[in-house]
Amino acid sequence: MTGTTHDTATRWPEVEQHRRLVTEVLLALGATATTAGAQADVLVEGDLRGHPSHGLQRLPMLVDRIRGGLADPAASGEHAWRSRSVLAVDGGRGLGPPVAFAALDAIVERAGQEGVTIAAISNANHLGMLAPYVERAAIAGVAAMATTTSEPLVHPWGGRDAGVGTNPLALAVPTPEDPVVLDMATGAVSRGKVIDHANRDDPLPAGVAVDAAGDPTTDPHAALEGAITPFGGPKGYALAAGLEFLVGALTTSALGRDVVGTLDASEVCNKGDLLLCFAPEVVAGTDRRDVLAAFVRELRATRPADPEHPVSVPGDRSRELRARRAAEGRVPVSGRVWAQVAAIAEELDVARPGSVPTSEEDTAP
Amino acid sequence: MTGTTHDTATRWPEVEQHRRLVTEVLLALGATATTAGAQADVLVEGDLRGHPSHGLQRLPMLVDRIRGGLADPAASGEHAWRSRSVLAVDGGRGLGPPVAFAALDAIVERAGQEGVTIAAISNANHLGMLAPYVERAAIAGVAAMATTTSEPLVHPWGGRDAGVGTNPLALAVPTPEDPVVLDMATGAVSRGKVIDHANRDDPLPAGVAVDAAGDPTTDPHAALEGAITPFGGPKGYALAAGLEFLVGALTTSALGRDVVGTLDASEVCNKGDLLLCFAPEVVAGTDRRDVLAAFVRELRATRPADPEHPVSVPGDRSRELRARRAAEGRVPVSGRVWAQVAAIAEELDVARPGSVPTSEEDTAP
Repeated sequence: MTGTTHDTATRWPEVEQHRRLVTEVLLALGATATTAGAQADVLVEGDLRGHPSHGLQRLPMLVDRIRGGLADPAASGEHAWRSRSVLAVDGGRGLGPPVAFAALDAIVERAGQEGVTIAAISNANHLGMLAPYVERAAIAGVAAMATTTSEPLVHPWGGRDAGVGTNPLALAVPTPEDPVVLDMATGAVSRGKVIDHANRDDPLPAGVAVDAAGDPTTDPHAALEGAITPFGGPKGYALAAGLEFLVGALTTSALGRDVVGTLDASEVCNKGDLLLCFAPEVVAGTDRRDVLAAFVRELRATRPADPEHPVSVPGDRSRELRARRAAEGRVPVSGRVWAQVAAIAEELDVARPGSVPTSEEDTAP
Repeated sequence: MTGTTHDTATRWPEVEQHRRLVTEVLLALGATATTAGAQADVLVEGDLRGHPSHGLQRLPMLVDRIRGGLADPAASGEHAWRSRSVLAVDGGRGLGPPVAFAALDAIVERAGQEGVTIAAISNANHLGMLAPYVERAAIAGVAAMATTTSEPLVHPWGGRDAGVGTNPLALAVPTPEDPVVLDMATGAVSRGKVIDHANRDDPLPAGVAVDAAGDPTTDPHAALEGAITPFGGPKGYALAAGLEFLVGALTTSALGRDVVGTLDASEVCNKGDLLLCFAPEVVAGTDRRDVLAAFVRELRATRPADPEHPVSVPGDRSRELRARRAAEGRVPVSGRVWAQVAAIAEELDVARPGSVPTSEEDTAP
């Protein structure tokens, strides 16, 4: 859809303006500098990395949840060490990022002594993209894995109705250069992408969704009434379900159709999150950096299918896009989202976003 | 290919005959009762679960490796606890199963105190199917994850040449009934399946392999000269590479094209293995069994795409096939493999397999 009105044109706020806007809105609603900053960092990262469904677009829902008492903007979680290696976190209805970063920092530090540590988080809000968490650990020299659950949006392989969450898995491993980072949902597409296709009346690729009857569809409107297909067939379903069972066994989260609170503004969020850290110098007991660096070089030197696109290592493409946008200093935000956020800021009388550049066409996904 | 000679007809040895044959061959070559039993268990499980590439078919290679000094049939690994939660294992060139089961048993027990434990195994031979390891932990009430690496057989997404291993991921979570178990390679197909298609001159499905030039092919002979495609597109590649980097960071394994010794009888095996355990009662701190059982029921009750095939939970199908074959008391073994193994047994003068039922058609994959 070409932007025909000022309101639907994509805006290009400066990165720091985006961050300040989120921070000040949350501060006005009772967040602390730390909790607001953590949430702002994660939303900025979503937009910097080309995942607007995990960017500023999330702010209006968070505001509604805070106002409805479903999210405590000042909470960063209560920590209980159940052993030298296990941190149980009651998120206290806190925003996902401050709760998860506080847990992560605690288990990263402890991993340096114990080698392997885990944080099991219950009762926190949506974490957003998982990559920033595992990357933060990797930058501190610690390999990390993260997973979380969501409302059921993905149908079991061989089933017609949504039964498992989009249950992403993230993993980061430090190398002498940039960390290797993967962050993948277990659905073939994100719900945000289905919504985007619906907004543009653009058919979905085949094989990524089913309609309300459970039959395969490429109609994005029908898909919104149905379910997302797991990526990679039965293996993707097995991974999605397996991760949800693991979260269910190790946190006090709800599972399957009982999960609520990441897509609505009416329910306390009851999904769970797991963060795992591994300190290579403790576990391997020897310096592995040269071996890892050589493997990075070897993969990048693989003969490419398309000479224009060298083979990448997981994390490269996201990092490249992020670096480009960070250098430009601006991120795209859909006109609709920008209008919502501007109205919130005006109402709270904070960080008036004012005038920002627009692009003629609404290219933000 | 229809079996036209006695030698190529599928044999149906009794399960206990299969197990005894493997055990006695290994004992004759210097294994202990424990190490031979562990290896036999894993090969029997491969054939019981319909994965002949991880069944008796592996025995001739193991025999060659033992005779060549590349595998020590009596070794079960040296254990060094690097912290309360981290077990580093030097496999001492041992067979994969006895080394991995010994490591697993140690970290399962320790998980009951520490909540999370890891074993990082270097210098052991091929583990075979990973499901039996994580299942064993789950039956003991402990959730478990396992991964391992292999020679590069899978091409990076966007690349033409093999660069990463088939790097399987296994996960088991205990529930009040059977554990939820997944065990998936990160290639779209196994090399064993490509070999099977080549033996039968049967085209591969589209999108699972490339030829020596790196172009997509459905010709299994061409695929054997090329590489396997990752399952699930770029996400499968990210998972395969991410797991290999993690193994590389935490063990003393080789990576990428430097990995040898699971497909040959000429090199010391230098891949690595990771086993992780999580004790739910320590981590969650509360009894989660009812929640997990309800999720199992809910998934199985999902409206099925095909009314003849109810929706399953990861592990169901493998368990059903295993139960059926165990009840029948026999497993299929290809005539070619049976002849090889019979020759080995005859040479070693052990457990003469004698006459076993054959089927007219060589249906063993």
